[in-house]
Amino acid sequence: MPAPYTLVLLRHGQSTWNQQNLFTGWVDVPLSEQGASEAARAGVLLKDAGLLPDVLHTSLLSRAIQTANLALEEADRSWIPVKRSWRLNERHYGGLQGLDKAATQAKFGQEQFMLWRRSYDTPPPVLDDSSEFSQAHDARYADLGPDLPRTECLKDVVERMLPYWQSDIAPDLRAGKTVLVTAHGNSLRALVKHLDGISDADIAELNIPTGIPLVYQLGEDLMPLGPGQYLDPEAAAAGAAAVAAQGNKK
Amino acid sequence: MPAPYTLVLLRHGQSTWNQQNLFTGWVDVPLSEQGASEAARAGVLLKDAGLLPDVLHTSLLSRAIQTANLALEEADRSWIPVKRSWRLNERHYGGLQGLDKAATQAKFGQEQFMLWRRSYDTPPPVLDDSSEFSQAHDARYADLGPDLPRTECLKDVVERMLPYWQSDIAPDLRAGKTVLVTAHGNSLRALVKHLDGISDADIAELNIPTGIPLVYQLGEDLMPLGPGQYLDPEAAAAGAAAVAAQGNKK
Repeated sequence: MPAPYTLVLLRHGQSTWNQQNLFTGWVDVPLSEQGASEAARAGVLLKDAGLLPDVLHTSLLSRAIQTANLALEEADRSWIPVKRSWRLNERHYGGLQGLDKAATQAKFGQEQFMLWRRSYDTPPPVLDDSSEFSQAHDARYADLGPDLPRTECLKDVVERMLPYWQSDIAPDLRAGKTVLVTAHGNSLRALVKHLDGISDADIAELNIPTGIPLVYQLGEDLMPLGPGQYLDPEAAAAGAAAVAAQGNKK
Repeated sequence: MPAPYTLVLLRHGQSTWNQQNLFTGWVDVPLSEQGASEAARAGVLLKDAGLLPDVLHTSLLSRAIQTANLALEEADRSWIPVKRSWRLNERHYGGLQGLDKAATQAKFGQEQFMLWRRSYDTPPPVLDDSSEFSQAHDARYADLGPDLPRTECLKDVVERMLPYWQSDIAPDLRAGKTVLVTAHGNSLRALVKHLDGISDADIAELNIPTGIPLVYQLGEDLMPLGPGQYLDPEAAAAGAAAVAAQGNKK
């Protein structure tokens, strides 16, 4: 099919650990009630905009899957084909998984905290396989073997996400399908970095709000024909500011 | 992988139209609240039995998809791969879709009513494409073209379901995966007819209850090593009796 191609990105709604201000990463926590409402509203936004996904790609984490399920139910598109991959998972937060964000900042200082959160290539400490927050014994990642991440910086996420973009998402777009990708703050940040050509230095400033579809029209080269558009720009701006302020929450 | 292989069948929970005693067929109605509870309980039954599905097959109808989503959430298996096909859809009820079951019985008589409901090879009248209950303009079936059913008897369901069993479900079983099939009264009846070698005459007597996983162990030939086992046999017996009595509901 000829361009333009339509890509819709959706960051999952608030999870119970977002609510408690904990580093989550690959820990598989569910949506909070607010998160479920956000997800349903995202479906209404899609339906009202006439943006009906033909195919869904999600991570292997429940909060992204639940978000997609709830949004697609609202949009009457539960029946579309779905493909899931660990390559769309949130950044693995290593040894920070399960820790309180404000307490971590207080303990390690603002500089180290921001380095872990926003440096492009500095991963947090490795998570030990014996930790209750480890995925070393999680059946869903059994196929990864020694490739299972134990910590990741954003650069690592870019490097494991882009192969999936090329191998699985790109063919669906080229087939003329409206593609919905339901994923996470950092896996979507990695994708937007690629699409918008954002530098390693500047990507830290990009905050993607939860629960608001972000729509791209792509050309033949699968690069954007213009800036991505949020379906609710006002809510998106407020949401991005809230994400940016998370570290300061008491 | 060598046998035995594990197959789990799950009929969707009560839908809003089951509740109202209407012929549903391919009309895409949601689960009722009771149906959602049944689905979640099915997930608990799976989890408690240690029967964790590795892959899911569903129809294209929301009530089966919702049932699978809710059950898998309870079983912490939302992340498994999923494949959907119209070949697992409920029997197309033709011109009866949208009609009240008791009123239909009163109007056409017990004999004609039971013929439409339980005859192996007598389909109901064809549904006109102009009906509000037609699927002729439903995007999810666009690929079917002239093969889109406008009415079906159980024989028709067997004939369109079995190719999917061979092409898509059988390979997953042979790969050693625990396969969950979430579908409908008649598409599951068609599958159980094949598995248990039930005759055309006797299959009408088989009533599969909603929301209770039915587990088969299969041999190398993908035929059962013994009778299918409901995870809650007592509830299953009561549920089957309730299904059998539906036509008599006032």
